[in-house]
Amino acid sequence: MELTRWPGIGPKTARRLAIYLWQQPAGVTKKIGDLLQNYQAQISICRQCYNLAEGETCAVCADTSRDRNKLCVVEGPLDIEAIERTEAYRGLYHVLGGVLSPMEGVEEDQLRLRELFQRVQDRPDMEEVILALNTSLESEITARYIRQRLKPMNMKVTRLGRGLPTGGDIEFADEITLMAAFDGRRTYN
Amino acid sequence: MELTRWPGIGPKTARRLAIYLWQQPAGVTKKIGDLLQNYQAQISICRQCYNLAEGETCAVCADTSRDRNKLCVVEGPLDIEAIERTEAYRGLYHVLGGVLSPMEGVEEDQLRLRELFQRVQDRPDMEEVILALNTSLESEITARYIRQRLKPMNMKVTRLGRGLPTGGDIEFADEITLMAAFDGRRTYN
Repeated sequence: MELTRWPGIGPKTARRLAIYLWQQPAGVTKKIGDLLQNYQAQISICRQCYNLAEGETCAVCADTSRDRNKLCVVEGPLDIEAIERTEAYRGLYHVLGGVLSPMEGVEEDQLRLRELFQRVQDRPDMEEVILALNTSLESEITARYIRQRLKPMNMKVTRLGRGLPTGGDIEFADEITLMAAFDGRRTYN
Repeated sequence: MELTRWPGIGPKTARRLAIYLWQQPAGVTKKIGDLLQNYQAQISICRQCYNLAEGETCAVCADTSRDRNKLCVVEGPLDIEAIERTEAYRGLYHVLGGVLSPMEGVEEDQLRLRELFQRVQDRPDMEEVILALNTSLESEITARYIRQRLKPMNMKVTRLGRGLPTGGDIEFADEITLMAAFDGRRTYN
């Protein structure tokens, strides 16, 4: 059954969904089919930052009130959603589409890395590139690679702070998180 | 049954433990009894920092190689264990024994707060007090209270960095953690 190929859906859930869809009034299930038929045509990729978009540019790039001199590099569109929810960042984004992974055969040209370097080079008034990548080893390697490539351009490159998350108890924190928290301790005013 | 009063032990586990203890060779269970009889006599509280100790001072306070001009304030002895595992900190500790909690009726004199302020006042060469408290609301309130009380002593007070923990994906991070991570971003050299 097609549904079992979807992420996070095993055979049991697939069966449950299939029965649910079959039990709906005829109109509802047909309408879902309609939506799916047009879904891919409606959602495209932003020409500038490779975020999901309806149209040529995404909502962030189209928003003229954003600070165009800050660029936040993320792995995927869901990261943008999470960061936008905080309302702590008002600059632009650049979606890599993953991270370098020799193990899984992901190399530079499968990501939007060349586009990133080009974008930074094309904007001499860019003030800061923020690497908002995850904490996996592959993400770290990708961050370091980007850092190396941006160095000759004299660009300020920052990365997100590491430390205790909300609800994080010191007693249960892993060593690297605690080390980062000590290392990144701040004056309490 | 006595065992069900222990933390994290419900009636089922208690029954399982009871049967386990009964099934052991006679010597083993008796020996556990012996250990428990002497346990409280052997473990005491460090006179200086209120960490657990065997004897009058704990292992950290007794270690002459520690930096006596840094003081790390923690909620409990398990926090010290976690921080010691990182080997990132070489100063001394001060165990509060909890945090202020009006809801649970924990007030200043039930914690080692007066002892903390006295300790800081008695050491004019103290360089830094690091607040390594948890991230709960009560912990935050306690941290702020300590900060206020140490202000007139002109003491440098720091707190652990907040941000993404190890294995923390941006996509799933809560808003406060992400805001802290953005706020605490660091230049990537």
